[in-house]
Amino acid sequence: MTQPLRLGIAGLGTVGMGVLRIIRQQSALLEARVGRPIVISAVSARSRDKDRGIPLTSYGWEDDPVALARREDVDVFVELMGGENGAAKTATEAALAAGKDVVTANKAMLAVHGQTLAEQAEAAGRVIRYEAAVAGGIPVIKTLVEGLAGNGITRVMGVMNGSCNYILTRMEDAGKSYQEIFAEAEGLGYLEADPQLDVGGIDAAHKLAILSSIAFGTKVDFNGIQLEGIERISIDDIRAAADMGYKIKLLGVAQATGRGLEQRMQPCLVPESSPLGQLDGGTNMVVIEGDAVGQIVLRGPGAGEGPTASAVMADVCDIARGWRGPVFGQAASALVTPTPAFSQAPAPYYLRMALVDKPGALAKIATLLGEAGVSIYRMRQYEHSDVSAPVLIVTHKTSRAALDQALEAMEGTGVLAGQPVALRIEEL
Amino acid sequence: MTQPLRLGIAGLGTVGMGVLRIIRQQSALLEARVGRPIVISAVSARSRDKDRGIPLTSYGWEDDPVALARREDVDVFVELMGGENGAAKTATEAALAAGKDVVTANKAMLAVHGQTLAEQAEAAGRVIRYEAAVAGGIPVIKTLVEGLAGNGITRVMGVMNGSCNYILTRMEDAGKSYQEIFAEAEGLGYLEADPQLDVGGIDAAHKLAILSSIAFGTKVDFNGIQLEGIERISIDDIRAAADMGYKIKLLGVAQATGRGLEQRMQPCLVPESSPLGQLDGGTNMVVIEGDAVGQIVLRGPGAGEGPTASAVMADVCDIARGWRGPVFGQAASALVTPTPAFSQAPAPYYLRMALVDKPGALAKIATLLGEAGVSIYRMRQYEHSDVSAPVLIVTHKTSRAALDQALEAMEGTGVLAGQPVALRIEEL
Repeated sequence: MTQPLRLGIAGLGTVGMGVLRIIRQQSALLEARVGRPIVISAVSARSRDKDRGIPLTSYGWEDDPVALARREDVDVFVELMGGENGAAKTATEAALAAGKDVVTANKAMLAVHGQTLAEQAEAAGRVIRYEAAVAGGIPVIKTLVEGLAGNGITRVMGVMNGSCNYILTRMEDAGKSYQEIFAEAEGLGYLEADPQLDVGGIDAAHKLAILSSIAFGTKVDFNGIQLEGIERISIDDIRAAADMGYKIKLLGVAQATGRGLEQRMQPCLVPESSPLGQLDGGTNMVVIEGDAVGQIVLRGPGAGEGPTASAVMADVCDIARGWRGPVFGQAASALVTPTPAFSQAPAPYYLRMALVDKPGALAKIATLLGEAGVSIYRMRQYEHSDVSAPVLIVTHKTSRAALDQALEAMEGTGVLAGQPVALRIEEL
Repeated sequence: MTQPLRLGIAGLGTVGMGVLRIIRQQSALLEARVGRPIVISAVSARSRDKDRGIPLTSYGWEDDPVALARREDVDVFVELMGGENGAAKTATEAALAAGKDVVTANKAMLAVHGQTLAEQAEAAGRVIRYEAAVAGGIPVIKTLVEGLAGNGITRVMGVMNGSCNYILTRMEDAGKSYQEIFAEAEGLGYLEADPQLDVGGIDAAHKLAILSSIAFGTKVDFNGIQLEGIERISIDDIRAAADMGYKIKLLGVAQATGRGLEQRMQPCLVPESSPLGQLDGGTNMVVIEGDAVGQIVLRGPGAGEGPTASAVMADVCDIARGWRGPVFGQAASALVTPTPAFSQAPAPYYLRMALVDKPGALAKIATLLGEAGVSIYRMRQYEHSDVSAPVLIVTHKTSRAALDQALEAMEGTGVLAGQPVALRIEEL
């Protein structure tokens, strides 16, 4: 075990360069901790000539990440290119086929192809590690797979997309619209190249799908997630929530129920005094509940060079120590196909709708809610423009089915100006 | 690796029975996770006949934990007896000498004898794992040793004694004196048999010493900790702190400085809106700062059957997976002897003192503080009894040395009725 562990790093963006930096600066500390040197044999990226602030001349170079994955002097293929398919997946498969272990930060690839890749890895006796794929620098994969291995996991929750949390926090602080803050975040480089991955909740849902698989021993099931982004959250919603003592967060929840696996990623109202309510900016939080441990809360930076590289290095160090195990915490062949289940647990809901400015519109809404069995806890009508009047409603606890029935009934009546917004209130 | 991992459990109190319960109830899940059965070969406790709610007839029995530690059918000796010396230490040494791995929840033993035991274990090629020794169910050892292995750790902080936090929280909620709530906590069984271990800060300091060693690559140095308990915190202090927007917490801080290793465990004022300030009751929180990751915060239950057994099982599972490593994250032989350093970083301080009811007493105090270079930010004198007047002072940032100089100068003046209380204010 005193042979060096030799890495091939594919992708030299922010995270890749962070990993390079740690290995260069902390080589003695790393060797003291894992008992052998960790070295970089070769790297691969789009451009060889780009000035990255660190000379790459001491490392081998491959234009093609697949060639890097197959190099004889590489023990671990470190995939930091990203993307659900394409080069990342091809090179990962090539690495496994060539008998290499894989460390990746690629949540999209794992959320969609995780089961197939896990089967391939385990058949080849290789490991895939992906601490950096979920919640940045927070060691949440390690906590679930190892730290809480003695627990039946009952629920996993979290705020796991820093960009969405930044947008929602900034909207409130600056009193600006979603569109304005979205543009600001994009300008600052806080959003993915396809911003829909962030604001549509897809990136966070990728992470939730991975956590669910580990927590509940199920095949990763991204398509089974009830998914809603933050694009329709208005500054009015944020202000109304604040008035009532709530914050709006893009919250992921996964739990095993009698009917199947419930996975949802959607904007929710959470009490502003709760740990989730106090989470500002790009910080992530994951809450894990186990039958023995009760509740564990992990908080930390969800993105960025240092935090993500720290998570990649945790995986590299475990492999260097010779610690091996199945990809999702149990053998891929033992994972069961989950039955997706939507939440039927009643919850209070927040509703915002714009009513056409006609007599009886509000009465109609109230009647339809009542007929569906949804009872109103608070209602507030705001000053209105010439054509429509905004109305905010907080319901008593109700099933989502009853609420959807009422909303559907409203559609045909012509009293709504635009689509209503309905957000679950999570009393944590 | 499909051979069962065979445990010998010494100590069948709350934690021991919790471990038994998990292994009985979750055997299939555990085997799926670690790839082999985890079984209990034999147990040892003070009384064989006590009714523990679970029959022990299917396990071997040893009156003597040393005999348990040496049994041929035991691979891992699980030490849950507690105590710095005595049977726990003797049996742990016997287990290592007999070629067994050890899992323990014994913070006192590790804080005092950790280096010797680590040397013995590593010489014998055995591991000692102790997730349950620090912060109950929170996987903080795993986070430090493994999850943040790519980081130079810069600071570790935490509230790690649930009993102290319970007492301080209850004093404020109930508006009762330290003595009253102490008696209440003792009646509820929340305190150690020797309550000084809790309220004197010793238990929390044991935990801090262990974290320091891992974080900074130093030999565990319990005696190097600047230690102060909560016994002198009065309800007046708690109320005055609350008036100013602070909570009082028994806070441990460890950091490497240019002068050496700073380790302190002492009651501090922390902002009530900070994560530490919001920590109520028996919940623990550990904050870890690393040069790559930034800040990670871990929160969870610090004690109790389920949480502590969960931590023990994490260690057992890692050993079952064949994952082995040095006791304190680096080879015991590589750990350096730390130079204890007291904090010289200036901080604001909270002072409470009772002045004799004589003209000029307050002026004398203010003068002596000024002469030592301690400047006063806020001062408040309360209604007083016939003989003494309570005075609360918040200083501007000052060194502890300057403050101690002023306090020393006050002693000879005869203006103080009783010993002053000085608490550091940590702006986190």
